[in-house]
Amino acid sequence: MAGKSAGDPRCRVQAAGLSTRTAAPILGGMKPTAVDEFLQLLRFPSISTSPEHRGAVAECGRWLTAKLAGMGLDAELHPTEGHPIVVARNRHQPGRRTVLIYGHYDVQPVDPVELWESPPFEPRITGDIVFARGATDNKGQIFAHVCGVEETLQRAGDLPVNLIFLIEGEEEVGSSNLEPFLQKHREALRCDVIAVSDTGMVAPGVPTLTYGLRGVAALEVRVHGPSTDLHSGIFGGAVANPLTALSRLVAGLHDDAGRVLIPGFYDAVTPLAPWEREAWGRLPIGDADMQQLTGVPALFGEAGYTSLERVWGRPTAEVNGIGGGFQGKGTKTVIGREGFAKLTFRLVPEQKPEAILEAARADLLRRAPAGVRVEVELGHYGEPYLTDPHSADGQAAQRALEKTFGRKTALIREGGSIPIINTFSRVLGADTLLLGLALPDCRAHAPNENFPLANFEAGIRLNQALLEELARGKA
Amino acid sequence: MAGKSAGDPRCRVQAAGLSTRTAAPILGGMKPTAVDEFLQLLRFPSISTSPEHRGAVAECGRWLTAKLAGMGLDAELHPTEGHPIVVARNRHQPGRRTVLIYGHYDVQPVDPVELWESPPFEPRITGDIVFARGATDNKGQIFAHVCGVEETLQRAGDLPVNLIFLIEGEEEVGSSNLEPFLQKHREALRCDVIAVSDTGMVAPGVPTLTYGLRGVAALEVRVHGPSTDLHSGIFGGAVANPLTALSRLVAGLHDDAGRVLIPGFYDAVTPLAPWEREAWGRLPIGDADMQQLTGVPALFGEAGYTSLERVWGRPTAEVNGIGGGFQGKGTKTVIGREGFAKLTFRLVPEQKPEAILEAARADLLRRAPAGVRVEVELGHYGEPYLTDPHSADGQAAQRALEKTFGRKTALIREGGSIPIINTFSRVLGADTLLLGLALPDCRAHAPNENFPLANFEAGIRLNQALLEELARGKA
Repeated sequence: MAGKSAGDPRCRVQAAGLSTRTAAPILGGMKPTAVDEFLQLLRFPSISTSPEHRGAVAECGRWLTAKLAGMGLDAELHPTEGHPIVVARNRHQPGRRTVLIYGHYDVQPVDPVELWESPPFEPRITGDIVFARGATDNKGQIFAHVCGVEETLQRAGDLPVNLIFLIEGEEEVGSSNLEPFLQKHREALRCDVIAVSDTGMVAPGVPTLTYGLRGVAALEVRVHGPSTDLHSGIFGGAVANPLTALSRLVAGLHDDAGRVLIPGFYDAVTPLAPWEREAWGRLPIGDADMQQLTGVPALFGEAGYTSLERVWGRPTAEVNGIGGGFQGKGTKTVIGREGFAKLTFRLVPEQKPEAILEAARADLLRRAPAGVRVEVELGHYGEPYLTDPHSADGQAAQRALEKTFGRKTALIREGGSIPIINTFSRVLGADTLLLGLALPDCRAHAPNENFPLANFEAGIRLNQALLEELARGKA
Repeated sequence: MAGKSAGDPRCRVQAAGLSTRTAAPILGGMKPTAVDEFLQLLRFPSISTSPEHRGAVAECGRWLTAKLAGMGLDAELHPTEGHPIVVARNRHQPGRRTVLIYGHYDVQPVDPVELWESPPFEPRITGDIVFARGATDNKGQIFAHVCGVEETLQRAGDLPVNLIFLIEGEEEVGSSNLEPFLQKHREALRCDVIAVSDTGMVAPGVPTLTYGLRGVAALEVRVHGPSTDLHSGIFGGAVANPLTALSRLVAGLHDDAGRVLIPGFYDAVTPLAPWEREAWGRLPIGDADMQQLTGVPALFGEAGYTSLERVWGRPTAEVNGIGGGFQGKGTKTVIGREGFAKLTFRLVPEQKPEAILEAARADLLRRAPAGVRVEVELGHYGEPYLTDPHSADGQAAQRALEKTFGRKTALIREGGSIPIINTFSRVLGADTLLLGLALPDCRAHAPNENFPLANFEAGIRLNQALLEELARGKA
């Protein structure tokens, strides 16, 4: 084993508090500070949905702003009614194209925390992989762009485009303060094209351009019964059980074959185009991968579609959480006073989230079982997105991806939602390029979320290729 | 207002740590020490289902044993594989009848603890009412018998019968160690009749003899899907949602009208006798009371029966708790890896708990939705009970009740379960008299459980009348 010196990457990593066992072999061409700083960013528990993490979210935003300012950008942290928004820009020059890179520094909650193999906000590097909440969604991906810009600035003193970084802290809770912010600052944020890395690659090493996303719409249904928990012996039989009623409401969302039963749910759905189904059928992923990735006993979904088609091109109704009554160990013979289910719908063009939420609410209230009171609270929503991957900027993105990865780009849709993309289109009038760096097993939103350092490094290179390719377009 | 002296009940209560505001007006003919000691007994968090309360359960058993020994009884705390059993007896004499008084010192869990208006193990007296977990079920009722025996011993030096107190710590978790204990000590526990106060009065001041109880059988169903929580955008549509599957299983337990759909569930049910339906129809309680007591938006139950008939004479399937996925505030767009529901069935003669559990398990497994794995864990159970209220001892019990309350006894069944009653019959060969002291709004098993001190005092007098009346029977 070679001796270490102060300039050895291993020493730098060790100095950042990591053992050589976990962090040594993976630094490749990256400056070790990029990884060090990525790990620093991951240590902020910036859970935007959780009121008790409000301070941590703000602290994370401040750290990121300081980082961008330190790179020589004009960086500012803008307070909102929710979590603050980071904006940074180089000195814009006339005649250059303006590119806005969007990302988010907030993360999902961590529960069930007991299933994490290491604490979610103490990043662990095993082999090439960083494990931490936010590693892939979205800190790893947005920070690769930050590091790409930093390298260009250090190497060339300027960027080939007018750049705007827009990095928010409320993506995981519906970005509700971003649209007013865009409206207020629409002149300052005007741009020719937007780039986002918050989507996935179909397989390791396969460059991927995402041209469609599902929309999302959330609601919570609560079923109220007795005024207090009741002894199920003393009262059972004479009153409706709110948990039985809740189960009937949830069960009635689908038929046996998994098709959504809400009246009108499928009315506005645009069928998949034949070319898409054919192209997706040739991708190096399929049902076997889906089963292996998810670990389910068997795949299950709408008849007549492949797994990719079900996830990318068909809408869903999902129960994200359910609860009520006694959930501790052992038995407690009660009829609980209430129960709840949290639902989200994933939507495809041309479904309208407001219309779907109203249809779902009407259906739940109409189906309210006897003897209970049903309450529906509508939550956040965002529209589905669909664009043309063969536009001039779409082709520039494909060239940048191919330059970075050395392979032909896969053109896909995705099942997730980035509602703000539609808002960009509406308010800023710009299309969005989705150049994802997440792998299918990165476990976004789940325990043991992770991101390969190879993808982090690829993101740094992709940023540089992308800005070069986009600079060639018409300003 | 009269001055206080050391003998003033208010001073005694104050000395026990209570304010006069809450405890003053209610002591009536009782010695204040009886109430003081009742409150001491309530302070033990003797939650038998909770492993972390194991020590508190044992401590409660020791306290009770010491109390009974201090009264001059031969008292012993018997360890078991679970929680210990208290046995106490006077000096038995030939030619006297032997009466066993059974009760339990363990209590139900306290959640949802946030709905308690005062801490469940810090008894609060408001007006005549003691609020605490276990106040009515069963500490208040069994301790009234203890205090009744103490008064007789202090007044007369002996009891009119050979007495055995048998007070266990596992009633709320199925009494699994009591039957082996009865088997092992069946000679020492041999008796002519058993008395239990762990049931209800139909209304305040109305003496009540319960001649039937429902049985109970518990199971937990768990639905397993993906190997980890999944992002519902990235994977939703391609895998079955375990919470949807769970809801389908729970919903399928009943039809729209509340009738249980498990094949064979009603096969062994004995129909209600015409005399019972007629007698119950004349009781001073009915549907309006049931709705008022429970606070439900509307009553709901099996067609063709009154609320009392549904609760006392018809079987049920209840979900006592359900859970899975994200239950925190806000939204988390996951497909949870698993969900569970805790079920109990209330059973009537001649339903067999083992047969019902097997039928339920088979039904749940047969209905397992596609794409998930269903697991059923069978829990504790006890048989329904039905006896003749017009037997000699039944009539003695009615006389004691009428002497205590000055009114004709209501003959009822109850919806709750005391599985050990059947074991007494089988192992000790003795019938059980159920002389309940709980009121319909005592909130057993629920937040703000309570017991009127008037009922505690009535229990002390009932114990004395009962032992006198039972002493007249054939030994």
